[in-house]
Amino acid sequence: MATGQEPMTPPEQQEPVETSPATAQPEADEQAAALEELRDRWHRTLADLDNLRKRHAKELERVRGEERARTAAAWLPVLDNLERALAHADSDPSAVLKGVEAVRDQAVEVLRGLGYARYEETGVPFDPTRHEVVGVVDNPDAEPNTVAQVVSPGYGADGKQLRPAFVVVSKRQE
Amino acid sequence: MATGQEPMTPPEQQEPVETSPATAQPEADEQAAALEELRDRWHRTLADLDNLRKRHAKELERVRGEERARTAAAWLPVLDNLERALAHADSDPSAVLKGVEAVRDQAVEVLRGLGYARYEETGVPFDPTRHEVVGVVDNPDAEPNTVAQVVSPGYGADGKQLRPAFVVVSKRQE
Repeated sequence: MATGQEPMTPPEQQEPVETSPATAQPEADEQAAALEELRDRWHRTLADLDNLRKRHAKELERVRGEERARTAAAWLPVLDNLERALAHADSDPSAVLKGVEAVRDQAVEVLRGLGYARYEETGVPFDPTRHEVVGVVDNPDAEPNTVAQVVSPGYGADGKQLRPAFVVVSKRQE
Repeated sequence: MATGQEPMTPPEQQEPVETSPATAQPEADEQAAALEELRDRWHRTLADLDNLRKRHAKELERVRGEERARTAAAWLPVLDNLERALAHADSDPSAVLKGVEAVRDQAVEVLRGLGYARYEETGVPFDPTRHEVVGVVDNPDAEPNTVAQVVSPGYGADGKQLRPAFVVVSKRQE
């Protein structure tokens, strides 16, 4: 068999090695068996890898659906209570208002339960990761670069930010 | 460069084959190299398998978080509008009512957008996969075993059921 002087880059093969039984020595036989066995293992591991990929794709889809259902279901009681509050509309308009305020509180609580606590503090230092500036106010009495007014509350924190708070900040000192 | 006469089936290799020039027979050497190479491949595939498992665990967590955020975020406009409706409370109580009704419609729309359409039809055949019976009514005019009244609407369909409708059914004919 021709052998190059320098390392070759031979074609890869996945077929079993051909051995000529007539000439094989015991050592070569053992090695051939070991080779066969190892090739089997490798192929099984490759099959495992492939199966795992397929299973993962399905599992991702399942988890996505589960999480969507779980999150959406958390809101059903809010909607139920909203409808209950509206059911009083004819008989007692002021009861509607109270009911709806309770629903609002419940909605905020649902968001907190999902990991998105509400925040709307004023007077705190401006934090670009939590606040989005929608205005600047020049108030000599306020600490510079703090939140003077919250136009719309923020939800979530620390990499689980659902929405930053929209705020008016006091002017930075020059 | 050396070129073989016939197509060879040399051992798979990515590293240069180790040979002990003094004693080795060519065939045994080749097989030893093939064995070594195959062992390498197998180990690399095992490592791939392990990495895939780890990556998948992280990915599941990421997908879960993403889906929760996406679903929760769909509800923020509902909460915003609820608060806007309440802001009118002092000046115009009847505006609150209209606003809140609009919010209720919006909430139903959000659920539909997430894949959980609302259903509350009466007169349809009772379907145990979509309806939960909370009462039975004996009405000779109604088709037997149909939905006579919806106490609470259902959401979702076909394996994406968020909540069945709670219904009163007309009596089954004896």
